[in-house]
Amino acid sequence: MTLTVGVLGYRFMGKAHANALARLPMFFPDAPDVERHVLVGRDEDALADAAHRFGFDRTATDWADVVEEVDAFYNLGPNHVHAEPSIAALEAGTPVLSEKPLANDLDGAERMAEAAASAEVPTATAFNYRFVPALRYAKNLINDGELGEIRHFRGRYLQDWLVDPEEPWSWRNSKEMAGSGALGDLGAHTIDLARFLVGDVERVSGQLRTFVDERPVEGEADQTRPVTVDDAYSAQAELEGGVMATFEASRFADGHKNDHTIEIHGSEGSLRFSLERLNELEVLRDGNRGYETILVTDAEDPYVEHWWPPGHVLGWEHTFVHENYEFLSAVDSGGSADGYRPNFEDGLAVQMVLAAIQESDERGEWVPVE
Amino acid sequence: MTLTVGVLGYRFMGKAHANALARLPMFFPDAPDVERHVLVGRDEDALADAAHRFGFDRTATDWADVVEEVDAFYNLGPNHVHAEPSIAALEAGTPVLSEKPLANDLDGAERMAEAAASAEVPTATAFNYRFVPALRYAKNLINDGELGEIRHFRGRYLQDWLVDPEEPWSWRNSKEMAGSGALGDLGAHTIDLARFLVGDVERVSGQLRTFVDERPVEGEADQTRPVTVDDAYSAQAELEGGVMATFEASRFADGHKNDHTIEIHGSEGSLRFSLERLNELEVLRDGNRGYETILVTDAEDPYVEHWWPPGHVLGWEHTFVHENYEFLSAVDSGGSADGYRPNFEDGLAVQMVLAAIQESDERGEWVPVE
Amino acid sequence: MTLTVGVLGYRFMGKAHANALARLPMFFPDAPDVERHVLVGRDEDALADAAHRFGFDRTATDWADVVEEVDAFYNLGPNHVHAEPSIAALEAGTPVLSEKPLANDLDGAERMAEAAASAEVPTATAFNYRFVPALRYAKNLINDGELGEIRHFRGRYLQDWLVDPEEPWSWRNSKEMAGSGALGDLGAHTIDLARFLVGDVERVSGQLRTFVDERPVEGEADQTRPVTVDDAYSAQAELEGGVMATFEASRFADGHKNDHTIEIHGSEGSLRFSLERLNELEVLRDGNRGYETILVTDAEDPYVEHWWPPGHVLGWEHTFVHENYEFLSAVDSGGSADGYRPNFEDGLAVQMVLAAIQESDERGEWVPVE
Amino acid sequence: MTLTVGVLGYRFMGKAHANALARLPMFFPDAPDVERHVLVGRDEDALADAAHRFGFDRTATDWADVVEEVDAFYNLGPNHVHAEPSIAALEAGTPVLSEKPLANDLDGAERMAEAAASAEVPTATAFNYRFVPALRYAKNLINDGELGEIRHFRGRYLQDWLVDPEEPWSWRNSKEMAGSGALGDLGAHTIDLARFLVGDVERVSGQLRTFVDERPVEGEADQTRPVTVDDAYSAQAELEGGVMATFEASRFADGHKNDHTIEIHGSEGSLRFSLERLNELEVLRDGNRGYETILVTDAEDPYVEHWWPPGHVLGWEHTFVHENYEFLSAVDSGGSADGYRPNFEDGLAVQMVLAAIQESDERGEWVPVE
Repeated sequence: MTLTVGVLGYRFMGKAHANALARLPMFFPDAPDVERHVLVGRDEDALADAAHRFGFDRTATDWADVVEEVDAFYNLGPNHVHAEPSIAALEAGTPVLSEKPLANDLDGAERMAEAAASAEVPTATAFNYRFVPALRYAKNLINDGELGEIRHFRGRYLQDWLVDPEEPWSWRNSKEMAGSGALGDLGAHTIDLARFLVGDVERVSGQLRTFVDERPVEGEADQTRPVTVDDAYSAQAELEGGVMATFEASRFADGHKNDHTIEIHGSEGSLRFSLERLNELEVLRDGNRGYETILVTDAEDPYVEHWWPPGHVLGWEHTFVHENYEFLSAVDSGGSADGYRPNFEDGLAVQMVLAAIQESDERGEWVPVE
Repeated sequence: MTLTVGVLGYRFMGKAHANALARLPMFFPDAPDVERHVLVGRDEDALADAAHRFGFDRTATDWADVVEEVDAFYNLGPNHVHAEPSIAALEAGTPVLSEKPLANDLDGAERMAEAAASAEVPTATAFNYRFVPALRYAKNLINDGELGEIRHFRGRYLQDWLVDPEEPWSWRNSKEMAGSGALGDLGAHTIDLARFLVGDVERVSGQLRTFVDERPVEGEADQTRPVTVDDAYSAQAELEGGVMATFEASRFADGHKNDHTIEIHGSEGSLRFSLERLNELEVLRDGNRGYETILVTDAEDPYVEHWWPPGHVLGWEHTFVHENYEFLSAVDSGGSADGYRPNFEDGLAVQMVLAAIQESDERGEWVPVE
Repeated sequence: MTLTVGVLGYRFMGKAHANALARLPMFFPDAPDVERHVLVGRDEDALADAAHRFGFDRTATDWADVVEEVDAFYNLGPNHVHAEPSIAALEAGTPVLSEKPLANDLDGAERMAEAAASAEVPTATAFNYRFVPALRYAKNLINDGELGEIRHFRGRYLQDWLVDPEEPWSWRNSKEMAGSGALGDLGAHTIDLARFLVGDVERVSGQLRTFVDERPVEGEADQTRPVTVDDAYSAQAELEGGVMATFEASRFADGHKNDHTIEIHGSEGSLRFSLERLNELEVLRDGNRGYETILVTDAEDPYVEHWWPPGHVLGWEHTFVHENYEFLSAVDSGGSADGYRPNFEDGLAVQMVLAAIQESDERGEWVPVE
Repeated sequence: MTLTVGVLGYRFMGKAHANALARLPMFFPDAPDVERHVLVGRDEDALADAAHRFGFDRTATDWADVVEEVDAFYNLGPNHVHAEPSIAALEAGTPVLSEKPLANDLDGAERMAEAAASAEVPTATAFNYRFVPALRYAKNLINDGELGEIRHFRGRYLQDWLVDPEEPWSWRNSKEMAGSGALGDLGAHTIDLARFLVGDVERVSGQLRTFVDERPVEGEADQTRPVTVDDAYSAQAELEGGVMATFEASRFADGHKNDHTIEIHGSEGSLRFSLERLNELEVLRDGNRGYETILVTDAEDPYVEHWWPPGHVLGWEHTFVHENYEFLSAVDSGGSADGYRPNFEDGLAVQMVLAAIQESDERGEWVPVE
């Protein structure tokens, strides 16, 4: 049987997922057969062009026509359109993959998670970094107890595309559309990895900052729009088991393009990871004195045997292939709501932390996540 | 018009090129349309399976049936089968891409280059590392004179898959089939990059070494076969313009999986590159004091705008996409023998250096390359 | 004229300063002549031995006999004995250098700073990292505006000597003697560098943690003492000018021996520093794309011409030589209370931040520093 | 008893050794007492000034007056004055430390080694890098068999102080005074480390290059002098036990100040070292997958307990302290000609390799070292 997939959104994320779908047969022969069935968007010309390039059978301008028909619905639009189409799809019993963060606010995320729980089909919040081989390898190390009892988690995600105050306004600068800025866009990844690798976030203290208050509108001389989200955030947190955590992200970190670093210290070892060197994991093992730089490209490393021999490095996009492989396999096997992780419940858990950090920033005090 | 491609070889390189062909339409919309027409090999079952996974229309067990029919012929077999099928294809006027080194000996390479010159169609020796964005960027820096007059070139290619003496024998250990060991397999890449980035090799002094003389035959207990090629080589060289060069490669460099490093010093700057961090280039610019670590993933960097935003790193396989894009574009435009570089003439130039290094090792003295 | 120096404390810090004093004549010929006059301590045998090795003329067991007599008094004892001897020395008009943090609590620091202000002689809080050439160089870059407007400061100081719960109790684990743990011992350095490089701390939100509550007493089987200070702390802060800052330190960061890292992002550049590679500074300059790794060992770099040619790296102890050179030069020239920085006023400013972080941890909310 | 030391040479090396002598008592209490007795040079004013700063009792302008009188004679002059004073001292039974390379030609080195053998007193060729803690640690690893059977040694020493053709002429550019250029100055260190860490050099193939043929004379407008030594060299070598080696050095490696790197691969592990990060050693241990970055500053590491706690890094100059400690201890104990290593015999062994590389460059073929 071939799974039909409907995809809402045809820009950056649309391309990333279309590519992932296209690569499955050659590299993951046991993945279900997938048909890139329908691509959904509003601008008909751009949509037709994208559908052609991305290999979709047809296009649609109304997601409502699609969500019932397909075997899986991918919601890759801006954050404020995550909720309604996803809920509609779930109400129709269609498994849904949503880009992250799950929604632009806590209310949306809660409604989405409820719909997912009722639907009892697999859902995915697209935290693709769980599928970096080096981070899977890290997860295995931690699960196997190789780092001992975890004491510290440190995650930061640095970009610099807003350093220039003349960089044009986009939906990512709008609270209405995005919910938050660096916090939801970048911090959501960090918080998901904290949960994935270490454990739940129990309380937070956060600070949000906007360095540039308004930005020019592209193509409209002398017009600006207000920036209503954070350019950067930092947070302190306590994770379950008493782990001390710090999170940080910025779109103003000059010289950093996509620098997501994770550092963990335990009673018997430590590890470090940077997304810009995503094939590498630095591990301090018990019995060693310093960090060992492991190139996580051996055949026995997670997902690697599907690709190339040792030392033939993978790129960012491969995480999407792994993610799609796992999600579609769960869909294909008729899996339950827990058939795939991170699901909408995980997305909601992250959203609760995002909301708590925002609340903490407003109230100037620690806020429990509950 | 759609170009039909026939591919001889369906293992590692077959997969790498099949993947490249499959990815062109989504990422290089101006590439010619390509049909993965026929896959050639001897083991019918394995071949059929590969053709299915790699998306080929049909299979063939005799290359002679194929080379005339297709619009481009890819010779991805072991080195000792590079010459005959490629020459036959060229005699039929079919453009040919051959894996590197061009042949298993100088004679084969010379005959291939002659056939290419007569055929007046594009040919390719598949030195894919010319298509790493960071190395293209490096090439541009050097061409623009940013490093000044080049003084030193240093290239080494380290792997460790033969450290274990129990690693089984393969065709890569046979002089008859491979021509040489680390020298031809790895050193050919280094020498090609020296020519690409700096200039022709004028004379060499080399040393070859075999650390383990025989290896077990896989699946046949207590049987061994002799290793008749080098496990490692080093060479000193003089490049045109008086550049001082050193080359080295080993399959016994414990801890190095696929570590091809290039270092160049000029009168006004230096650069460093490592294949295991192929998105990065370290550059000492005039006016700076230290090396600048450049993540070569910006939209204006070579080939990058076809892929992802800054900081979303590429992998090893992307070099094959770029290579296929350039070669097939040249084929499609009916280009001349110089329509694509590195062509068979470049492959021959490298082979002459390989042969000179071997001769130098035997004679114990410097050998001119001519 | 020769300056006589009296030093209280003959362990780690005593050795570091004695060495610094001994090296001045050979490397800083314009430094004042210094006599290592008297070494003060309680254990007469250990003291005599240290005085011999460190080159002191004589010893004393009561600091009260010393503070008036010498030209400069160095207080290198545990934190809880910083205040009284220093104040006595200042009341006698003797310039004082105190190890950091200035005191074990805010009250002590305030009294010391008041005494310094009344005495109108140079004082020093021994934040030696201000005298790392690479950090001086960083300071000059920032002062010259090369990083533009500063947006982010990130400082963390990681050690691992308490990871093992069997590591014996020491005065550094006692609130009474040390005031705080990682916060005062390590965080004080970070906060001083934030003030030195960027600006004053205006408000903080902090968290302190003790992972191991009691530790064995060395040499007394089965006895333990309570750990009454933090093993680790983290803090968020706002610096003057709206700079967003995060601080962190731990004695439980497995694999990190003395890893003090500073990272700063501005509107036109960034920089990174790590104490374990203290000869290097990574700088993103305007016009460059990536960080440039600068080996700060050129003759024109701060303090370097006193030492060795470029590339002949300095060590940790050299910071003490620079610090002593500057302080004793100020003493020798009869300088005012501002004749040397960081002075007791700077030490107090740091102590106020330490106190605010502790208060914030207790109250669970942001605390202004005032 | 106090050892009196006479030192010929008061510039860079004079300062480095004077500092080392001065630091012994505080850090190596079991070292013999040393008197910086007499400093020898020709320029009386400069000499007097240096003697004052370096703490010497008196000066002399003729080494012949000194070599008999002192307990140890240090020959730190240019290479062409190594032989005569050293031989005279040895004939007087005085132990000698000579800077490296041992002489400016093979003849001088042979005569020095003969004199040393006859004198039966300790001698030293000042290959100070043997005394880097990280390299001692490396030596111990290799001796303990942790790398298995050694296959590859790779050493290169890069500087850039001659990149500028206007850099003035110095004695280091003269064949008469220096013997060779990068080869003897830098390569001698590399070859000594190859012998120290792995084994004797059995045959070599080398190339020498001079990029800039003449240089301006400082202070004399429009005058130049010819450069009669190499600006850079490279060599291939075979070490005892069949180890494959490559050596290289340059004074034209833009961006490298004092970058001496050593890399070794064995059948069970590998290691890497760079002098610009001399506190670190990268080790691939058996059982690990990647290099472990070890900060060689723990108390149990070679020489470290004499200095500071873990993570408080040492500098270049510390190697001289260790070297002087070992040499003077051997002198003090009335040791034999083998009482200290590397001695003049080691210096000669290196000189033979230097000579063989030069001969190989001239003859264009491999040359045995015998």
